[in-house]
Amino acid sequence: MINAERFLSDLHHLRSFGASGSGVVRPAYSEPDIAARIWLAERMSEAGLATRFDEVGNLFGLRDGQSLLMGSHTDSQPEGGWLDGAFGVIAALEVSRASAERGGPPVSVVSFQDEEGRFGVTTGSAVWSGGLELAEADALLDHSGVSFAEARARMEHLTSGPVDASRFTGFIEAHIEQGPVLDQAGETLGVVTDIVGIRDMRVTLTGQQNHAGTTPMHLRRDAVQGLARIAVGLEERLRNVVTPTSVWTIGHVSVSPNASSIVPGKVVFSMQWRDGDLERLARMEEVIRDVIGEVAEQLGLALEYGPLLGLDPVAMDTGLQLRLASAADQVAPGKWRHMPSGALHDATNVARRLPVAMLFVPSIGGISHDFAEDTAEADLIAGVETLARAVAQ
Amino acid sequence: MINAERFLSDLHHLRSFGASGSGVVRPAYSEPDIAARIWLAERMSEAGLATRFDEVGNLFGLRDGQSLLMGSHTDSQPEGGWLDGAFGVIAALEVSRASAERGGPPVSVVSFQDEEGRFGVTTGSAVWSGGLELAEADALLDHSGVSFAEARARMEHLTSGPVDASRFTGFIEAHIEQGPVLDQAGETLGVVTDIVGIRDMRVTLTGQQNHAGTTPMHLRRDAVQGLARIAVGLEERLRNVVTPTSVWTIGHVSVSPNASSIVPGKVVFSMQWRDGDLERLARMEEVIRDVIGEVAEQLGLALEYGPLLGLDPVAMDTGLQLRLASAADQVAPGKWRHMPSGALHDATNVARRLPVAMLFVPSIGGISHDFAEDTAEADLIAGVETLARAVAQ
Repeated sequence: MINAERFLSDLHHLRSFGASGSGVVRPAYSEPDIAARIWLAERMSEAGLATRFDEVGNLFGLRDGQSLLMGSHTDSQPEGGWLDGAFGVIAALEVSRASAERGGPPVSVVSFQDEEGRFGVTTGSAVWSGGLELAEADALLDHSGVSFAEARARMEHLTSGPVDASRFTGFIEAHIEQGPVLDQAGETLGVVTDIVGIRDMRVTLTGQQNHAGTTPMHLRRDAVQGLARIAVGLEERLRNVVTPTSVWTIGHVSVSPNASSIVPGKVVFSMQWRDGDLERLARMEEVIRDVIGEVAEQLGLALEYGPLLGLDPVAMDTGLQLRLASAADQVAPGKWRHMPSGALHDATNVARRLPVAMLFVPSIGGISHDFAEDTAEADLIAGVETLARAVAQ
Repeated sequence: MINAERFLSDLHHLRSFGASGSGVVRPAYSEPDIAARIWLAERMSEAGLATRFDEVGNLFGLRDGQSLLMGSHTDSQPEGGWLDGAFGVIAALEVSRASAERGGPPVSVVSFQDEEGRFGVTTGSAVWSGGLELAEADALLDHSGVSFAEARARMEHLTSGPVDASRFTGFIEAHIEQGPVLDQAGETLGVVTDIVGIRDMRVTLTGQQNHAGTTPMHLRRDAVQGLARIAVGLEERLRNVVTPTSVWTIGHVSVSPNASSIVPGKVVFSMQWRDGDLERLARMEEVIRDVIGEVAEQLGLALEYGPLLGLDPVAMDTGLQLRLASAADQVAPGKWRHMPSGALHDATNVARRLPVAMLFVPSIGGISHDFAEDTAEADLIAGVETLARAVAQ
């Protein structure tokens, strides 16, 4: 039903923007990210789609009238894999082309901006779906202090106006699993049942920087020591409130002045946690704030919390799920499953405006957010074929 | 015996190089550091001193024949105070001028390079005194990956040849205490008895970077978690082998890829410890390597140690100490003391070649390695006066 060669050739061309080894370095609003979006807009025009960039740089390729929206994102992590987001966008482009060629149902295509959270969390789709006010987004800073407003101004010359969600009947996002489940089970496809919720906030600990040779241990207010006690304390204290699928991560750490002969006066770090249950997310937050507060107290550190960003758990639309499930059963009989998504996706935001569903293909070794990220070509093609059949139904 | 106005005016002019608020940003081989050394060379020439830059950028101002060497360093911490090193260098310049004007004993002046350890530990004086081979020093990297060889090449055009230690009869370094002892006791001067030893090494922990949403906690190899367990483990395990004056510090931390949605795959951190007793330094090293090794084992992290840099504890020359003590007793009767130096200084290296001694003036609030670092003007002048009298004896 699809043109696999055309799909693969576009997917590999997209990989060339910000290419680094086998991976990509294409963070939101970087030069390669913007160049990739301009290239994608050209492919969309070739496919007869009307292209539109909205005010935050989300790129839409539109069919006239009512249509089904498909897509994902083309920005990457600071050190990202070549398929994260890219697969879903190029798969959507191919399905839109193939369906049009068959005179099938109209399919529009989207690449959302800053899904990887250089600023907030899935920022582009959050603004588009109304989950995040633009003014609020504009105030967000990346880890080097650049504001979202400054960053999106780099795409201002491309902006061609807003896109109303009411023109779409639903949204389907195809994505690599980014986890080990399908790969370990030797399966080809995963039909997503729901997406876990996420919470993310920046924490600043301020102590007293001083000479590392003349400041006795008992007089120190060492911010790195504070971070250490928090990380170890969370290991112990969160165990009691979480399930095996709950996760928490300190992924970003910035130390000042960051010199080996100075007691560190300040640490800024990211605190992120995820769970499928809304109440559990709240209980985890209580424990996290308790532990951080207690350590700050013990060490005499000043404590400051950034805004609590995040998204609630989201259930997929049963109707769209069913169409994906029956298509999956045709393409890979006995080699697909229903499963939750531990990763956050743009579909989480779009669910505020439209019925949404997601389809996963395996990640080799479960590796993602890493240059080594990859998926077998046959599985990529099976994914696109499944999307095409789900649309044709 | 000295010209206090001339001394203060030079000290404040030096402060203008790399000035930032009340402090200075003048790391070794930075533009402001090199500019400050060129300015200092001009002051030396005015004072009738023959100036010489050696191959690593140490700046000497030489009297003919045999002379007493005095000085310290003019490079600063990434965020440094205005007196750390600068006081000792300008004090030496003033004492050399004043002694010459009185027809007193000849005093040469030095500003050593990279005392603050952008690369190693007191790198410039370590190379000059033969404690560190130049080839070895050239291979050292700063935290951003620049090599010592690349950095010192920035001063190549200034190099005017080596300086033989045999022309000097001894070395006296004046310095701010950088600790709270004199300030809390309301005293003016400290005659140093010995300098504690230091050990410094870089540690690299490598785990597996992966998606922070889809990687279950029990499958993670999180390098930041490793750092946290090490820092907390050292708090507990070192207590048994140290004294109240022993210190250890994790002052530099670098996380990769350092993004909030990625389980951190790699952490590089600095591990530094100091003590007055050689055997205790070795016992501390055993405990440190044990704890780091055990944590790496627990979390499945690859472990890599950089070279172990450091300096052994050093006793000050009794003859020079006595001259400083009797001068101190004239300048500040009842307001001076004998004391150890918890901070490392160039004198530690110079002791390999010459008899050395040190004189401390108070640090207000014990604050150093911080923009807020300061000393009462009267105490600064008392320090220079004491040096002048010690020389005249």
